[in-house]
Amino acid sequence: MTDSKTTSTKNIKVYKDLMGENTKWAAKTRALLQEHNVRMLNIIGSPGCGKTSLLEAMVDKLGCNINFAVLEGDVETTNDAVRLARLNIPVFQLLTGGSCHLEAKLVHYALQDLQLDQLDMVIVENVGNLVCPAEFDVGELAKIAVLSVTEGEDKPLKYPLLFTEASAVILSKTDLLPHLTFDVDACLEAISRVNNQIPIFQVSSTTDTGMDEIVNWIKQYGAEE
Amino acid sequence: MTDSKTTSTKNIKVYKDLMGENTKWAAKTRALLQEHNVRMLNIIGSPGCGKTSLLEAMVDKLGCNINFAVLEGDVETTNDAVRLARLNIPVFQLLTGGSCHLEAKLVHYALQDLQLDQLDMVIVENVGNLVCPAEFDVGELAKIAVLSVTEGEDKPLKYPLLFTEASAVILSKTDLLPHLTFDVDACLEAISRVNNQIPIFQVSSTTDTGMDEIVNWIKQYGAEE
Repeated sequence: MTDSKTTSTKNIKVYKDLMGENTKWAAKTRALLQEHNVRMLNIIGSPGCGKTSLLEAMVDKLGCNINFAVLEGDVETTNDAVRLARLNIPVFQLLTGGSCHLEAKLVHYALQDLQLDQLDMVIVENVGNLVCPAEFDVGELAKIAVLSVTEGEDKPLKYPLLFTEASAVILSKTDLLPHLTFDVDACLEAISRVNNQIPIFQVSSTTDTGMDEIVNWIKQYGAEE
Repeated sequence: MTDSKTTSTKNIKVYKDLMGENTKWAAKTRALLQEHNVRMLNIIGSPGCGKTSLLEAMVDKLGCNINFAVLEGDVETTNDAVRLARLNIPVFQLLTGGSCHLEAKLVHYALQDLQLDQLDMVIVENVGNLVCPAEFDVGELAKIAVLSVTEGEDKPLKYPLLFTEASAVILSKTDLLPHLTFDVDACLEAISRVNNQIPIFQVSSTTDTGMDEIVNWIKQYGAEE
């Protein structure tokens, strides 16, 4: 690769090579999306934090105003894509086959198969992982961090990169709060210590709490660019 | 590095280099632990699946029979080490500074600072991540996978490597089951499809359910080698 930077240790050089390659594909994707006037969001959170359930709950609210498709990232299985396809939205499953995050190249290839001229937005559901996906730009306009209240209030401090990179945080599964010792204020404080510029949405897809607010934010975001 | 294997693409070669280096450090760790007759377990699971709470709940039950120390792996913060240090067990915090998993070299360095002759066991709590830590042997005798019932029953199929590699699965936070739609039988079935040889412990550290069984398994495991 022509843009690799040599450093004193081989391992560090290697990671720069890989990220350089990823950045190139992310840039190609941005150009492709801009050409078709499509915005892309990248949803990131731990396994089981409720990303797919949030998307399921958003479909009706978002779908009446915005034509969107979903790219479902997973290590294995097509379970999540099957769940969303039932709701009659275009959904494509991206399987990493072991890798812990989506890379820009795979996302770019998938986008080429979409009818971009018929879309306003693409929503990427990244592989369930609070660490690695935040490091890999896939060409999105914004990252959305999802943290469920079952995970503990200190996670933004323990995994700060995602919360630094994100343009919004969804605090999910708030319907479970009465059964947990989770301290919402401590969590909000932890998020603000990492990033005090971002909106935080307290949401339950089960009880439809806070869903209108996040959907309105997404709509507004989509229209801003 | 002398053991690198060349392949047709640069990226694949790179990963082999890194894993080769990791394997060397894991082997050094196994030799060190064997010399001192110490067993090491590696606990792996998503952020917030309850790994630290399980360790807190195990301390008294395990501590009366086995002298053990804990190595706490995190991307950032010493929160978990502080929690365990309150219980008067030797605990060391390993910060990866961004990396999504513990590597064998860092674990090896930490072990050199422990009084190994006074220990029977070292328990590693890996970085919260259901994907990457399973790929990196740190010199442990066994991996324990922790999956909380808030994460969904299909996770063993979506993240199969950990469940293939693990010697036991802890299904945690079972006290929350009455408030969830989680299907325990479907989860047990999913685990058995990936690995039908491993014991599965249904556990709540909050209500002290199943804790004796997992502690007895750990004790027995420790004595087997």
